Amino acid sequence: MDSDFGIPRELSDLQKLRSLYQTELPPCLQGTTVRVEFGDATTAADPSDANIIGRTFPHTYGQPLAHFLRATAKVPDAQIITEHPAIRVGVLFCGRQSPGGHNVVWGLHNALKIHNPNSVLLGFLGGSEGLFAQKTLEIIDDILATYKNQGGYDLLGRTKDQIRTTEQVNAALTACNTLKLDGLVIIGGVTSNTDAAQLAETFAEAKCPTKVVGVPVTLNGDLKNQFVETNVGFDTICKVNSQLISNVCTDALSAEKYYYFIRLMGRKASHVALECTLQSHPNMVILGEEVAASKLTLFDLTKQICDAVQARAEQDKNHGVILLPEGLIESIPEVYALLQEIHGLIREGVSADNISSQLSPWASALFEFLPPFIRKQLLLHPESDDSAQLSQIETEKLLAHLVEAEMNKRLKEGTYKGKKFNAICHFFGYQARGSLASKFDCDYAYVLGHICYHILAAGLNGYMATVTNLKNPVNKWRCGAAPITAMMTVKRYGRGPGASSTSIGKPALHPATVDLKGKAYELLRQNATKFLIDDLYRNPGPLQFDGPGADAKAVTLCVEDQDYMGRIKKLQEYLDKVRTIVKPGCSQDILKAALSAMASVTDILTLMSSSSNGGQIRF
Amino acid sequence: MDSDFGIPRELSDLQKLRSLYQTELPPCLQGTTVRVEFGDATTAADPSDANIIGRTFPHTYGQPLAHFLRATAKVPDAQIITEHPAIRVGVLFCGRQSPGGHNVVWGLHNALKIHNPNSVLLGFLGGSEGLFAQKTLEIIDDILATYKNQGGYDLLGRTKDQIRTTEQVNAALTACNTLKLDGLVIIGGVTSNTDAAQLAETFAEAKCPTKVVGVPVTLNGDLKNQFVETNVGFDTICKVNSQLISNVCTDALSAEKYYYFIRLMGRKASHVALECTLQSHPNMVILGEEVAASKLTLFDLTKQICDAVQARAEQDKNHGVILLPEGLIESIPEVYALLQEIHGLIREGVSADNISSQLSPWASALFEFLPPFIRKQLLLHPESDDSAQLSQIETEKLLAHLVEAEMNKRLKEGTYKGKKFNAICHFFGYQARGSLASKFDCDYAYVLGHICYHILAAGLNGYMATVTNLKNPVNKWRCGAAPITAMMTVKRYGRGPGASSTSIGKPALHPATVDLKGKAYELLRQNATKFLIDDLYRNPGPLQFDGPGADAKAVTLCVEDQDYMGRIKKLQEYLDKVRTIVKPGCSQDILKAALSAMASVTDILTLMSSSSNGGQIRF
Repeated sequence: MDSDFGIPRELSDLQKLRSLYQTELPPCLQGTTVRVEFGDATTAADPSDANIIGRTFPHTYGQPLAHFLRATAKVPDAQIITEHPAIRVGVLFCGRQSPGGHNVVWGLHNALKIHNPNSVLLGFLGGSEGLFAQKTLEIIDDILATYKNQGGYDLLGRTKDQIRTTEQVNAALTACNTLKLDGLVIIGGVTSNTDAAQLAETFAEAKCPTKVVGVPVTLNGDLKNQFVETNVGFDTICKVNSQLISNVCTDALSAEKYYYFIRLMGRKASHVALECTLQSHPNMVILGEEVAASKLTLFDLTKQICDAVQARAEQDKNHGVILLPEGLIESIPEVYALLQEIHGLIREGVSADNISSQLSPWASALFEFLPPFIRKQLLLHPESDDSAQLSQIETEKLLAHLVEAEMNKRLKEGTYKGKKFNAICHFFGYQARGSLASKFDCDYAYVLGHICYHILAAGLNGYMATVTNLKNPVNKWRCGAAPITAMMTVKRYGRGPGASSTSIGKPALHPATVDLKGKAYELLRQNATKFLIDDLYRNPGPLQFDGPGADAKAVTLCVEDQDYMGRIKKLQEYLDKVRTIVKPGCSQDILKAALSAMASVTDILTLMSSSSNGGQIRF
Repeated sequence: MDSDFGIPRELSDLQKLRSLYQTELPPCLQGTTVRVEFGDATTAADPSDANIIGRTFPHTYGQPLAHFLRATAKVPDAQIITEHPAIRVGVLFCGRQSPGGHNVVWGLHNALKIHNPNSVLLGFLGGSEGLFAQKTLEIIDDILATYKNQGGYDLLGRTKDQIRTTEQVNAALTACNTLKLDGLVIIGGVTSNTDAAQLAETFAEAKCPTKVVGVPVTLNGDLKNQFVETNVGFDTICKVNSQLISNVCTDALSAEKYYYFIRLMGRKASHVALECTLQSHPNMVILGEEVAASKLTLFDLTKQICDAVQARAEQDKNHGVILLPEGLIESIPEVYALLQEIHGLIREGVSADNISSQLSPWASALFEFLPPFIRKQLLLHPESDDSAQLSQIETEKLLAHLVEAEMNKRLKEGTYKGKKFNAICHFFGYQARGSLASKFDCDYAYVLGHICYHILAAGLNGYMATVTNLKNPVNKWRCGAAPITAMMTVKRYGRGPGASSTSIGKPALHPATVDLKGKAYELLRQNATKFLIDDLYRNPGPLQFDGPGADAKAVTLCVEDQDYMGRIKKLQEYLDKVRTIVKPGCSQDILKAALSAMASVTDILTLMSSSSNGGQIRF
């Protein structure tokens, strides 16, 4: 932790050029006067969760949405913030480093200084551990100079991504009080933003004046909900990985002798794998969500890949590229069950050497069937979110191993007549995380940093900074803030084999999985057969900062029809308009028409809301 | 082999932009009139090899160097080629695909058509196997359109990289005769260019009119000698790998908890590892050449890395990045000896299962000491050049494993007091090979393609196309051709354990290793300690095609003081000048001065040449 954080460093020519890049702010954040419009009080997406969330977060649940508007916006009841006293803000990185994280710090610093040069920004060194230990570095222009638009989290570093135990929360509270912070900005993913919400609630309860703000920064792209369209870092990670996947596709097609199995970082959800598939068109991708939904076993997956290899061999193609998300392993039902048993035994303190002998007969049989390298990896201690150590489990090697065995069997039996199957395995993750951030991630992160300031200036606590309408150019972006509690869900799960009792989890943000009914997945399905057989490999090339491709955005971002925040605002405008038209004194006809129309609207919405799945009725 | 070679395909926006990029030709190749100047007859670098090479290649050894000059160049005895009959040329890719290979085909096609639109270029499908089977695709503009400046070898594909057995050579001869080829252009590395020289000799002997030309295209960068400064593909590979290494460095510095062990593709020599180190400044690199020169054992290497980890821990640094060339494993003396025994047994037909029991006691002890995954990899069948399957042997995992064990031991003994050592391993190779080619590789390959035509137009056989002065802009490049035999050496090696007899190998091109007395290595040594301790990580960023970095050239290319071809020409100019000044009729004084000066020059050179190592005397 005594490393040389924040020291100026030598940059390459390209890094220098990038360090001079300056994101333009959306119109609503330009100038020093910003209007905040508050929407209606928020609820949770699943009405049945609302009660529990409300009870767990009495001070921070149900707060309204906030929209930041340009100073000239004609919204009568928007609040105009013109006074900007000097404030003290702390900021820290939590969890996996994601390209663009530095720009949140830069944007926040810039906004603070524009509104009051006496405001102070303190960076916590080494993530949450730096917060607990009150290790800070004051962020000043000189320090930022060589970190603007650069990848990594090395300006401040990071360690554990957890602020959860009573000791940790108390240490954070003490730090904020001691350092007299008006605001604490937590940059991170699902887990860290859940922690941010918890801190906000605890601080409010303890009457600590520090307001807590979360920022959605995670390469996994799994912090997605009504309010959050994508995360900082996802765009860059997908572009760098797609470059490499495409290179491997070209390689496969040139040498015509290998099947490449590529596992991609991204934790439980398969967003990175889906996006990379849509960018580079490999022959096959197996999404964890598909496997979970169809309950595909290891045997099913092996067969599926072998059949694909065989179909391609019949067309004289003895090469191919197959993508796998790192979360896949947990989506395979029997492996999941095995992992649950192993983790249970680990929690009971059983040592790794003794676990295999204490497994149930069924789990033990599976365990013994697996190759030794995978056994060793499955025995690793689970992560802080109870998932397996996904980055360490070489699912790609397991599948390549099983496919090779099956293809050799088919070859021997004469059912497969192609060339000998050869696999080469890759894990793409660490080599993308530290990349220079894409233009999109630079812009998005910088704007989010600005929004953090405005959230604090408006005195809000327990909010996440949000930007919507992201698929459009920066000058069309809508800036806002949503209470983190409004993004929470409650997990209900049975525990232990055959248990019938249902346990209710703590409200939390949960990783959004790939929506198998969504447009991005539909696009994949439409092309899957062509991708499999026709080698429609596409090479988006290395990340560019100028010219074609430099302004390309994630395919999954662009095909999804999002802008929830924009629609919420639009709805409010309609309601306001009805109120304006149907003022006391209007004609009887107009009133009658309004009544009748609104009665029918409320009927439909009541019906939809009462169905437990919150809106899945189709008309 | 029936894949869809050469079909037009959909390109990404960046690929499209790149496909429109047009390399400017150096002045000497512009226009349709080119002058060829022939230098003196060539010899081999090592005089003691000259005899054997001459005997093996009676028709193609000792041919003169060729320099291509601009039409207006004032060189009296240069041959001017103005007649350009239509010719038929075949071209094929051999060996590991290297970015830029497509541009050789494009440059060659362009030069053929400029000089005579009736000339025909046939691409052999699937490399040497396509040559033997006479599977061809006529190269036309439409086909090239989507392959210009693109990576991979997928325009034509490739298979085995060998044209060596009598059957293979005869099949090639038959193909060239049947297809009535005036020229055959072989695109490849060390092995393929040796094969090209052998074909040229065989064709000359057989009075086959097809002239054979080699082109130095190999990502390994190991086809280096007096005439060849660098290879097509090396620049791109080093840039893509440096991007990834830098990302991993940033990652290491952000998370501060991992040591990354990265193995790099590049076969026996460590050129890629050296260049990537100079571009991205990781903490450590272990070159195979250093290990071989100092005879470092596995134990020495482990200790060296452990000491580095410990030194860094004392500065509170628990992260780091260590590069290893894939050829390292063969440079470790005891592993090399073990591999020799294993390969000997494999050649005797001993099956993998029985090898370990037939090893000598010493080799067996080492074999049993190694972790199981490495044992399995060492037992793989050797490659066609008798080296181990370097890409399949996970040296990085072996070293990480040994270092971890040693660090745990030191931790237990209390001699190391830092954090627990954690390693993450990578192999970077396949993900770079298929990359879009860098501007340098696009230019270099395209110019080489043009030169191939001029070599054929000049009627030369057994030559390699060469460009020198590469560190300068394209308009300063010098274009020429050198007989491949002039680049050959002869290996003398003892065979078998304890054998005293010396066997003499066939003359061949051998991979050039990193010169431990060269300037590039010196630059590394000067910075090694700083790199190790100070984390001077440098991120050249993703490959760019415009702006800063787009025109950057390999560091090893720029620091070396090469231009051998330019110097040879310069020398010839001096000699000509002396002859012009000291013409019969000049004054006695001038003649005396010339005699005295030339006597002293010839004395020095005679002395230097007679020393067996060819010029290592220092004055």
